[in-house]
Amino acid sequence: MLQFELLATEGEARRGRMTLNHGVVETPVFMPVGTYGTVKGVLPRSLEEMGASIILGNTFHLWLRPGLQVVKKFGGLHRFEGWPRPMLTDSGGFQVWSLSGADGKGRKISEEGVRFASPVNGDKLFLTPEISMQIQTVLDADIAMQLDECTPYETQDHRTTEAEARASMQMSLRWAARSRDEFARLANRNALFGIVQGGMFEALREESAAALAELDFPGYAVGGVSVGEPKEDMQRIMAHTPRRLPRGKPRYLMGVGTPEDLVDGVAAGVDMFDCVMPTRNARNGHLFTRFGDLKIRNARHREDERPVDPTCTCHACANFSRAYLHHLDRCGEMLAPMLGSIHNLHFYLNLMREVREALDAGRFGEFARRFKADRARGVD
Amino acid sequence: MLQFELLATEGEARRGRMTLNHGVVETPVFMPVGTYGTVKGVLPRSLEEMGASIILGNTFHLWLRPGLQVVKKFGGLHRFEGWPRPMLTDSGGFQVWSLSGADGKGRKISEEGVRFASPVNGDKLFLTPEISMQIQTVLDADIAMQLDECTPYETQDHRTTEAEARASMQMSLRWAARSRDEFARLANRNALFGIVQGGMFEALREESAAALAELDFPGYAVGGVSVGEPKEDMQRIMAHTPRRLPRGKPRYLMGVGTPEDLVDGVAAGVDMFDCVMPTRNARNGHLFTRFGDLKIRNARHREDERPVDPTCTCHACANFSRAYLHHLDRCGEMLAPMLGSIHNLHFYLNLMREVREALDAGRFGEFARRFKADRARGVD
Repeated sequence: MLQFELLATEGEARRGRMTLNHGVVETPVFMPVGTYGTVKGVLPRSLEEMGASIILGNTFHLWLRPGLQVVKKFGGLHRFEGWPRPMLTDSGGFQVWSLSGADGKGRKISEEGVRFASPVNGDKLFLTPEISMQIQTVLDADIAMQLDECTPYETQDHRTTEAEARASMQMSLRWAARSRDEFARLANRNALFGIVQGGMFEALREESAAALAELDFPGYAVGGVSVGEPKEDMQRIMAHTPRRLPRGKPRYLMGVGTPEDLVDGVAAGVDMFDCVMPTRNARNGHLFTRFGDLKIRNARHREDERPVDPTCTCHACANFSRAYLHHLDRCGEMLAPMLGSIHNLHFYLNLMREVREALDAGRFGEFARRFKADRARGVD
Repeated sequence: MLQFELLATEGEARRGRMTLNHGVVETPVFMPVGTYGTVKGVLPRSLEEMGASIILGNTFHLWLRPGLQVVKKFGGLHRFEGWPRPMLTDSGGFQVWSLSGADGKGRKISEEGVRFASPVNGDKLFLTPEISMQIQTVLDADIAMQLDECTPYETQDHRTTEAEARASMQMSLRWAARSRDEFARLANRNALFGIVQGGMFEALREESAAALAELDFPGYAVGGVSVGEPKEDMQRIMAHTPRRLPRGKPRYLMGVGTPEDLVDGVAAGVDMFDCVMPTRNARNGHLFTRFGDLKIRNARHREDERPVDPTCTCHACANFSRAYLHHLDRCGEMLAPMLGSIHNLHFYLNLMREVREALDAGRFGEFARRFKADRARGVD
């Protein structure tokens, strides 16, 4: 089940509340990514303490490892990974696209589905809308995603043409209907989202959004961004598409992005975001702060007694210095990505909390301007 | 400062209480090892929750990274690594011995001290009793250790002879006096321990213990075990030496050992232990339980819904299954060593808690027998 209430709006920006089988999610929301059934380097209880209200699992990865037999035994992902709050699984389509090689040589797409080789052991695998729904029903996340074909920005020999993007988008629409039908047949009590495709072409995006609305999903996502396109194109589609989706349903911008992208996305009418950036960047020593980003590996932090961000209330900033994090990173100590991931996730989750408060108070525009100015200032 | 109270004894086993500058330590105690200023993979607050009352830092490693200039700025290790409770640093001597090659080619030992090349950047370094005390004074742990020469069990061409072990032990004694004098000159307000050497020779161990007692240290360690000798030799020295140390002072068996070793050590009169085994083994998927050890990588755990140890109250066992830990380990996820380290450290700390309770109740002998029988039973 999914209930969505719109609590307030400011321009296209929306303050909402989603009620799911495992609890309530205040939107706009950032969803930490738990690829293999774990948000990398973070204890579930730390996520709860940081206020994460919904996390992701990757269907593709979990299908391969631990496999459905194991997850089935646990009655779904929630019990398997010890996460009591809402959860969302993607369809697996994006990973088939990104892990079998952007050149497309590792996979074969037909109307029926995608054939590809397992990157774990080379096994031949076949993913169809029906199989994705069957897998996601075993995973039992509160929100499942339709199987779509992720239209690439360009292939090795040329940029995707409008005709190619249209054909791909139309197949994703047919897969949307098949996903919906199979989801109903399985009597899955969670919520299934449709995914808008259409490449970098506004007209196709509108066609996709309108056709999906007719299928009446409980929520909608914008897919096929952050697929190698220039930043301007991503911003153009992000500004264009969300407002074309049904007003009374949650809108999810998949795989985006930087803190600034999240604020822009909210301004464009997006309710939900996910991105590996906070955890992946933490593992590379890239830490986010209100006043710009900080590379903890940089020698200038060697003796710095200040926390990463003196205005931050996360466990890392409350207890440890830049000098200590710099030292841990230099020594390759696990505690470096552990504390960095706590800090970065806290930053993203706290940003969305501030965005929600600003929307509640009707001053999101002002907040967004100030946030971007602060971020551009640079770390002291 | 160090105050030591003997609260109860049973045979050679002792129940005690140490009061140090940063707090009280109930003994017998296990001290988790925080080599580079972090117990690998564990948040300091998790250590506090598990009841760790004192942790180690390695002088050698911390001298090289982050270096004394950084630690000095923080006024010592406690604030640098965010650990408010007692701490112990070793002298650096063992790492000079183990990291510059057991063949001795990477170092040059003279009466004055040890010359060796930094394993981090090849810099030529010189460690003397005086320099070790100066470094440890900057680190400012509650307990510091004298610089000693770790007598090897054997070198490439022969087993250490009694004459060689005597010469080495006697130099360690001279270094003990120099360490003590320098520690006093530096007006270090923490406690300095002397270290018994003497190789596998009881007579030399007795000579070393008696000479150290005359130097009147606030505590004593047994060093030079777990240096490549057969298990029987380790057990022989462990059974022999602790009881020869002054009764009113804490006794520390360095670098030991398995859970069974700890129980045997307590029976032999040891009050303090440290070992990397709980954290290192966790990173290799080796988990300790009351009923024997468990290799989480083993395929038989693939679908096992039970916790690692159903009788264990640690955070990992309270929330996660063997199947989940097996999955995390197979996927190379950081959460595997994080949860494994929590479990193994909890096991060691809890074992010592049970040992203390048994000593309080005058039934340590019975506890030790039952513990070993349980451990030998094997995991279900």
